[in-house]
Amino acid sequence: MDKVQSLTGMPDLYDDGDAANSSSKLFEVEKGIKDIFINYKFQEIRTPVLEDVNLFKRSVGNASDIVNKEIYSFNDRNDKTIAMRPEGTASVVRSIIEKKLDQTSHKLWYMGPMWRYERPQKGRYRQFNQAGIEILGIPEGLPEYEMISVICSIIEQFKLKNCCIKINHLGTKENKESFCKALVDYLEPHRNNLNEKDKERLKKNPLRVLDSKNSETQSILKKAPSIRDFIDKNSIELLESIKKEFSEQCEIKIDHNLVRGLDYYSGFVFEATSLDLGAQDSFLGGGRYDQLFSQLGGKNLPAIGMAIGLERFANIAKVDKVKRKLVSFIVAASNLEPKAYKIAHHLRSINKKVVLDIHLSEGSLKSKLRKANKNNSDYVIIIGQEELVNKTAVIKPLNDELKEQETVSIEDLYSFYKAL
Amino acid sequence: MDKVQSLTGMPDLYDDGDAANSSSKLFEVEKGIKDIFINYKFQEIRTPVLEDVNLFKRSVGNASDIVNKEIYSFNDRNDKTIAMRPEGTASVVRSIIEKKLDQTSHKLWYMGPMWRYERPQKGRYRQFNQAGIEILGIPEGLPEYEMISVICSIIEQFKLKNCCIKINHLGTKENKESFCKALVDYLEPHRNNLNEKDKERLKKNPLRVLDSKNSETQSILKKAPSIRDFIDKNSIELLESIKKEFSEQCEIKIDHNLVRGLDYYSGFVFEATSLDLGAQDSFLGGGRYDQLFSQLGGKNLPAIGMAIGLERFANIAKVDKVKRKLVSFIVAASNLEPKAYKIAHHLRSINKKVVLDIHLSEGSLKSKLRKANKNNSDYVIIIGQEELVNKTAVIKPLNDELKEQETVSIEDLYSFYKAL
Repeated sequence: MDKVQSLTGMPDLYDDGDAANSSSKLFEVEKGIKDIFINYKFQEIRTPVLEDVNLFKRSVGNASDIVNKEIYSFNDRNDKTIAMRPEGTASVVRSIIEKKLDQTSHKLWYMGPMWRYERPQKGRYRQFNQAGIEILGIPEGLPEYEMISVICSIIEQFKLKNCCIKINHLGTKENKESFCKALVDYLEPHRNNLNEKDKERLKKNPLRVLDSKNSETQSILKKAPSIRDFIDKNSIELLESIKKEFSEQCEIKIDHNLVRGLDYYSGFVFEATSLDLGAQDSFLGGGRYDQLFSQLGGKNLPAIGMAIGLERFANIAKVDKVKRKLVSFIVAASNLEPKAYKIAHHLRSINKKVVLDIHLSEGSLKSKLRKANKNNSDYVIIIGQEELVNKTAVIKPLNDELKEQETVSIEDLYSFYKAL
Repeated sequence: MDKVQSLTGMPDLYDDGDAANSSSKLFEVEKGIKDIFINYKFQEIRTPVLEDVNLFKRSVGNASDIVNKEIYSFNDRNDKTIAMRPEGTASVVRSIIEKKLDQTSHKLWYMGPMWRYERPQKGRYRQFNQAGIEILGIPEGLPEYEMISVICSIIEQFKLKNCCIKINHLGTKENKESFCKALVDYLEPHRNNLNEKDKERLKKNPLRVLDSKNSETQSILKKAPSIRDFIDKNSIELLESIKKEFSEQCEIKIDHNLVRGLDYYSGFVFEATSLDLGAQDSFLGGGRYDQLFSQLGGKNLPAIGMAIGLERFANIAKVDKVKRKLVSFIVAASNLEPKAYKIAHHLRSINKKVVLDIHLSEGSLKSKLRKANKNNSDYVIIIGQEELVNKTAVIKPLNDELKEQETVSIEDLYSFYKAL
């Protein structure tokens, strides 16, 4: 019969350290990042996977790549256009407004799958994972430090090398608009020297031209106006203070060309990059989005947030996997299963820190011992006919060549296991 | 401006123990269940949210409620019908076949959101959460014990009361078919006494008539043939042995009317119920599905699995939330933020077990102390103008009335924090 295939760009992830296609590292990265968020007293929020597509059109922006091409959307049975969420921030804001929680401050984290509808390439899937945090209800000041502090903690915990945190300030909405106008005025005479992509950007979202990788565009930009001349002294001071306070932890670079892809950013923005990632060197980004709440119909709530691309981050992160003690449990004759199983069940209940691997398939003692060795078990517990009659068990250490196997009473087996 | 609303039946979940609509308990339940799976040496698998709808039509079964009415499906841009996964097992099987891992045995767990398209009611959402395990590649025997052992561990860990594990055996595919025929022969003469729902079941999936809650149907069923007379002696013995070995842990009941809603089950089946749940008393169910692999185009791989409805389970579970130490960090004057923040960043890096809550908003010392008290902080660290000049900090214990606040050097602050 025909096989049903998985859909294009929708990967299966397995947590099996030994397998070639294992996602163990991604999963370890998720655990470590969650721990950092909790350590900083962020609280989890889980928004649904599906949202009204208008949420993203009105927040991420019609001009952004996400809404133009990449959003995974469909019409439901009532012909309403539904989106698989492409990012986390808009849903968090929608939720806070809907639950009327936009009167007070919040520190929230989320983690989970997101979707985009693009042609999958190496390392880019239609379903991928992101983690993020949002600080809501607090104006510019300490939240900016908190964001950079979280990033430094992540970089430190996962021993990232060759990292740089780029920071910039886009000023107020008005500053951003004046700068944008000046940039357009400067670029228009050069229009014919831009490639198609940058021409399109110039028309729809001129700030994104600053992101261009095109060398000709970059050389045109050398003499372009800088956001630095359009923002307040305070904003410059904030950038300099952050650079000063965190430079011991990580290289901090003030980069006035950093703009970020999404429309909703203003004020302080940032991005973390690693040389180890190659050309697409960014693995984390974020910024302030003080207008988004009112734009989505809520109160005027100041906010700042960031998101991490987890697959990309896992590529460069180093993780020390905490190994739990592993004990293999072998029933050495058939038809003893029920009685032997009862002992295993009791072992599991008295020490929950140890992983007990009961060998469930039929097979010779020899093949089971081989499997236990391959598994890197610390000990093997063997129960056969004789042991069950005598109420004993055999304990065999596997990771210590000097220790001999011994036969012990079931009571002693329990004490031994409890003390592991 | 108009607010964008969340979609019908798609809840937002918040992990905030104090809030009325908090999902903290659900999240604690997830953590505890994950720990049990890992303790039993199951490995995580994450399949994508979206699948070809045919996967579920061919596995869960065309006659089941899930495929008939409940599946959340849509047509994508290429007019292919896509489903939001309604359950976890079919995707796991699809993945194992697709990756050609159907030559060997596996113990896998999954956890995550699932979808159904039904009118939302109290406690039933379109997006909900399930956890499950699958033991693949091992025929009837120890895997059956392992399943019941996991269930007993879950019941014990979450201190569930009034629980019962119902077990049954549907025999081989042939046994199930003979019984089904006998049941139809018995029920046909009574057809006119059945309600519409049971008539429909009799036509499409006769075994499901045994699930009927209708009292007239139940009284008709009293004299119906029993699966007990269609299955092997070994099967009866397995049921009795499991009942015997686990009765100390939980009430085990052999229930020959237990059939399970999905088409793919045969052999050993089970369900865990709690009186605390009311009429819909089941929170967990599963069974053997030895035919599903070949049905989906794979090798003939024996398999058994189970799934837990997490929202429902969280309603009856008791959790002892592990409380981490919580320290509030207050900067007691403006314009000191950068210097004070640096100290906070260092504190977080030297003890990752403590949660440090930096008060990020402006406000009086008094209001910040009130917030720290409300938060149940164990300590407050206060840094003001004087402290920064003298390189000191104030430590104020909040949960111990006998201890006074003290002013310490920054070095001593670090030692104190490290030792928490």
